[in-house]
Amino acid sequence: MALGLTPSMERLVEELKRFPGVGEKTALRFAFFVLRSDHAFAANLAHALLGVKEQSRFCSGCFGLTEQDPCPICCDPRRRSDEICVVEEAADMMAFERAQEYRGRYHVLGGALAPLDGVGPDDLRCNELVARAKEGDVREIIVATNPSAEGEATAHYLARLLKPLGVRVTRIARGLPMGGDLEYADIVTLAQSLEGRREM
Amino acid sequence: MALGLTPSMERLVEELKRFPGVGEKTALRFAFFVLRSDHAFAANLAHALLGVKEQSRFCSGCFGLTEQDPCPICCDPRRRSDEICVVEEAADMMAFERAQEYRGRYHVLGGALAPLDGVGPDDLRCNELVARAKEGDVREIIVATNPSAEGEATAHYLARLLKPLGVRVTRIARGLPMGGDLEYADIVTLAQSLEGRREM
Repeated sequence: MALGLTPSMERLVEELKRFPGVGEKTALRFAFFVLRSDHAFAANLAHALLGVKEQSRFCSGCFGLTEQDPCPICCDPRRRSDEICVVEEAADMMAFERAQEYRGRYHVLGGALAPLDGVGPDDLRCNELVARAKEGDVREIIVATNPSAEGEATAHYLARLLKPLGVRVTRIARGLPMGGDLEYADIVTLAQSLEGRREM
Repeated sequence: MALGLTPSMERLVEELKRFPGVGEKTALRFAFFVLRSDHAFAANLAHALLGVKEQSRFCSGCFGLTEQDPCPICCDPRRRSDEICVVEEAADMMAFERAQEYRGRYHVLGGALAPLDGVGPDDLRCNELVARAKEGDVREIIVATNPSAEGEATAHYLARLLKPLGVRVTRIARGLPMGGDLEYADIVTLAQSLEGRREM
């Protein structure tokens, strides 16, 4: 890179470009924002970056994000231990928690099957899920991977893996999202909204 | 914010949200990227952030970005001292330097006039420009503010301010950009490309 920046700015731009979806122009905008901001912003951000690496970790039970291991959800006796909701990422688990609807436990896979990108079952936490399904009193596993091609493939793989263990495997509902517009919905969603229709 | 994150992740998301154009979703994506990355990334980025604040500053001559004051361009005896190219931001100055066409000095205004946003002449480095135009051997001031409403207004303001000092004030050319498509050009650019036509 030869942007004509000072060496310290070039270094910052190079580091910022490693964030997903951040190209040279965005990294430059961020770097100039840092330059213009007061010293406290750079110091606080640097501190927060190191803090995350020092304090946040993945729970050894559900592989969710936590500062204590096992995480508060895995430790909570009021959460049902016979239901496991399987999600791709820790962020998905947080999304469900925000909805305040689910009262069971979670299992974070760490991604979805993507053979073309070289992501196979061994790269996800599938074996750990099977181990959890075998032990204890697990009765239902709710597969909440994303409604994408990879997420669907992962869901089908998990169903084939888990059903022989005698556990109930369910998939979250697909259909029109709340506030969505029927006119602009894609054909797959529309088809699924018909297929999954329920008695009123 | 109650995203259900760990305290250290919440802090990082809050800091990242201060970057221009970064909302909660992008900040979350960045924070999880930090969490998944190795420790070196967080450490290097933290180091780069502090490095910029410690080492990069604005030149007291042209207000461009530099690690030494005055900056290498202001100090370079081979650069013409009778021409000043006025730009809005230090990044614009770097863009000209990349083009390797201009051999004079620069002046970074620090923005453009935007009365609706409360940015008046006193918020820009206009007085400093007048002082530079008065002293020494400045013969031409090239106004290279952006071809936007604010940039044009700033250019007209500067012309009115500088011409009485007996200095030549010019504006960079407007027209169709290289590689542009006439069919898709906006009407203002097309009108300017006709108005500014030159003998072949």
